[in-house]
Amino acid sequence: MSDVWLNTLMTETPQEGYDLAVKMSRVAVKMTQPDAEIRERLRKEYATSFDALIAASGVVATHFQTIASANNHWK
Amino acid sequence: MSDVWLNTLMTETPQEGYDLAVKMSRVAVKMTQPDAEIRERLRKEYATSFDALIAASGVVATHFQTIASANNHWK
Amino acid sequence: MSDVWLNTLMTETPQEGYDLAVKMSRVAVKMTQPDAEIRERLRKEYATSFDALIAASGVVATHFQTIASANNHWK
Amino acid sequence: MSDVWLNTLMTETPQEGYDLAVKMSRVAVKMTQPDAEIRERLRKEYATSFDALIAASGVVATHFQTIASANNHWK
Amino acid sequence: MSDVWLNTLMTETPQEGYDLAVKMSRVAVKMTQPDAEIRERLRKEYATSFDALIAASGVVATHFQTIASANNHWK
Amino acid sequence: MSDVWLNTLMTETPQEGYDLAVKMSRVAVKMTQPDAEIRERLRKEYATSFDALIAASGVVATHFQTIASANNHWK
Repeated sequence: MSDVWLNTLMTETPQEGYDLAVKMSRVAVKMTQPDAEIRERLRKEYATSFDALIAASGVVATHFQTIASANNHWK
Repeated sequence: MSDVWLNTLMTETPQEGYDLAVKMSRVAVKMTQPDAEIRERLRKEYATSFDALIAASGVVATHFQTIASANNHWK
Repeated sequence: MSDVWLNTLMTETPQEGYDLAVKMSRVAVKMTQPDAEIRERLRKEYATSFDALIAASGVVATHFQTIASANNHWK
Repeated sequence: MSDVWLNTLMTETPQEGYDLAVKMSRVAVKMTQPDAEIRERLRKEYATSFDALIAASGVVATHFQTIASANNHWK
Repeated sequence: MSDVWLNTLMTETPQEGYDLAVKMSRVAVKMTQPDAEIRERLRKEYATSFDALIAASGVVATHFQTIASANNHWK
Repeated sequence: MSDVWLNTLMTETPQEGYDLAVKMSRVAVKMTQPDAEIRERLRKEYATSFDALIAASGVVATHFQTIASANNHWK
């Protein structure tokens, strides 16, 4: 993760903010499990587990809250 | 998810804000599991699991908090 | 859920705010599992599961935080 | 739960705020499982489950955040 | 828990705030399971369960957020 | 954990803030399980468990929210 991937929390629209929230929720996973092949295998498993999908959705919700606040809720 | 689905966090009423929160909690699921058929099957399973229903309700609560703040709590 | 059930986040007292938070945590469950009979059966199960009761209490806590903020903490 | 139990979020000290947060986290449990005998049995079980104890502590943390904000962090 | 243990949310540094957050996350556990011997046994178990360690870290994060806000983020 | 590891919540960029959030989520784990060898073994296990990876990502999200607020969202 030495690349620059998060320069700003500002986005043009709420939807772009949502996409950023999804990205931010995934980077933490990547930092703990850097092996792309293992991640891919895990992703397949959790894509059929509703508990995991909902938990992931919850992480997105927290990041979106931060991003929405940074963008003054795009008002 | 290339369509525009989230243009604004503003809603007329708290209830519309709640509906938007439900939608936002589901989109993250859709982005991870794009197969509608699999999602439908999973939805049936989790609709009879209280743990999953409560967890999903928790994601809605976080999104609603963000939306309520964006709308100045509809005051 | 076509009925109007959430007109305002304003309540007279903190306790009424708490009751509203409980209601809001349950509506998301209802929207995912519209069958009242199934919900009743699930409710009986989770009423004897502390994990589920605590998780439900956590959703109430998030909604209450939103409602308290809307009411300027009833100050 | 027809009694008045939550008149105000204001407390004299942070510790009293913490005690109120504990109380608030328990009331939602009580509202879902009104049978005191069953609750007592469940409490004994979860008092030996660290997962449940930590989850309960998380609900207290959310309520405490609300109460702290209401009290302007007792500054 | 009749002793005074939480007089203020103010700390000199972020790190002291973090330590206080850890303490606050543990007190709720203590209030539900007052038996120190049982807690010690549970602590040993959960210290080897990553799920429990992560959940406990999440409670610390919520309390730290409150404390950081109280201290104006030590700016 | 007697060393100074958290002097400030200020960072130059959002990405550095994210890295700090990751660090903060791990310190609580370290404080409960100080044995580096056991932690290493647990880390290997949880790096192949999506539930644990997502839960850890959620803790990062909460800390990032705090850090973002401290930095006025790097605006």
